[in-house]
Amino acid sequence: MYERTVFFLSDQTGVTAETLGHSLITQFDGHDYRQVTLPFIDSEDKAREAVRKIDKTGAEDSFRPIVFSTLVHPELRRIVKEAQGLHLDIFDVFLEPLEVELKQAPAHESGRAHGMSDINAYMKRIEATNFALANDDGGISRNYDMADVILVGVSRSGKTPTCLYLALQYGVYAANYPLTEEDFESGQLPDFLKQHVKKLYGLTIAPDRLRQIRKERRPLGKYSSAQQVRYELRESEKIFKKFGIPHVDTTEFSIEEISSRILDSTGVDRRVRP
Amino acid sequence: MYERTVFFLSDQTGVTAETLGHSLITQFDGHDYRQVTLPFIDSEDKAREAVRKIDKTGAEDSFRPIVFSTLVHPELRRIVKEAQGLHLDIFDVFLEPLEVELKQAPAHESGRAHGMSDINAYMKRIEATNFALANDDGGISRNYDMADVILVGVSRSGKTPTCLYLALQYGVYAANYPLTEEDFESGQLPDFLKQHVKKLYGLTIAPDRLRQIRKERRPLGKYSSAQQVRYELRESEKIFKKFGIPHVDTTEFSIEEISSRILDSTGVDRRVRP
Repeated sequence: MYERTVFFLSDQTGVTAETLGHSLITQFDGHDYRQVTLPFIDSEDKAREAVRKIDKTGAEDSFRPIVFSTLVHPELRRIVKEAQGLHLDIFDVFLEPLEVELKQAPAHESGRAHGMSDINAYMKRIEATNFALANDDGGISRNYDMADVILVGVSRSGKTPTCLYLALQYGVYAANYPLTEEDFESGQLPDFLKQHVKKLYGLTIAPDRLRQIRKERRPLGKYSSAQQVRYELRESEKIFKKFGIPHVDTTEFSIEEISSRILDSTGVDRRVRP
Repeated sequence: MYERTVFFLSDQTGVTAETLGHSLITQFDGHDYRQVTLPFIDSEDKAREAVRKIDKTGAEDSFRPIVFSTLVHPELRRIVKEAQGLHLDIFDVFLEPLEVELKQAPAHESGRAHGMSDINAYMKRIEATNFALANDDGGISRNYDMADVILVGVSRSGKTPTCLYLALQYGVYAANYPLTEEDFESGQLPDFLKQHVKKLYGLTIAPDRLRQIRKERRPLGKYSSAQQVRYELRESEKIFKKFGIPHVDTTEFSIEEISSRILDSTGVDRRVRP
């Protein structure tokens, strides 16, 4: 049994309610929350169904539920509020000041954010994702002319997930190239990278953390040995220094943070916005 | 010149402020907004720098800026409010009711959401991403025992970006398999899929939309011809019906929406939360 349930209600995906709620509840430690997302509440029936679920759960928990919601329609919002719980709704508090500021009534239409209202945004994200896949791990395409940024670093420093996140979230064209034994021995970068040295961005990571990640992949052998990991990281940092490549230590950062830091530091523009 | 600028301020990545702000401003049509994210405002100096940027921009625009912020530290929040603009801050309005409800003071520490507080969450997302890559396009691994869900559909119906989004956002293990000419001719699924028929989820799409997407890739030839596209979609829908595979038409949906609908419809649990 959980002591309390946090609900995320939405007439769409629930991504906004989840993001908002997560930012807030992580400010309060030591609670054992169950988290439940109820997306696509787009009719009065579904709103009443949500009320039943919330009340049923609340009756079983030790404390009443917390309900984060982003319901656009006033009538659905009214129904959902009948559920017993603490209700926190962004449209309740922020729509009115925006209405006053913009001297315009809100559309009260759902599906405007995260929706297909902009097919171009969808295409850009798909194309950026295809670009990241084709230019992953120094691979196939090496379409570096088209890249917004090229991540470099040792194996398992976080390059691939970061490139994919940049593509899916922001439509940014991110390639990546894994620094190799050959690069370390020569202290040089391949010519196809040197041409684009201004697009390079380095990822580094603490040796212990890298070992931990590599061991998940190959528990034994040189690849995850303390000596090898330290050697590769030391040499990669020498290369960053030699070529003036800005870099970030990813040890303490999530994929979102690494991505935001890259955009912030390079000045690369988001092609789409979430 | 833009008529108005929308700022997203954060002591962390800015993802929450962007998501919140986007949900709200898309309710008001016809405005020509410039969108600027100012992340990592984690010192009084940076807060003052943000104030300068906001005021400079506001002086150039026709209307004062709208400022969405998610600053945890009360002092930084106070400084930022000195900027001329409409300020909307989630911590201003939601922290107090939560404090009362939970009978606990908030940590006022930044970096709790989207942070590395949970290394397990990071590892799960990375592993799920590696899984998606290894099991993309019916490829290499076919580790379908481990899959939470296996997306099936014709080429370019949105399988790959959806799998990657499910992995990065939710840590869900999503494989995908492209239905082929052979499957259409036999009206059958390969045995390695039939074994996992309960994990299958279909993607379909309107013929015109699919043609448009395929033409971006290969403008000429059978691949993007009206006849071929209609044939493949018709046959794939027959297969969905024959094997009782739930499916969604992705034409009108963004990657977030497709992903949410899959989780909602299959009941697959999020392994991590954004």
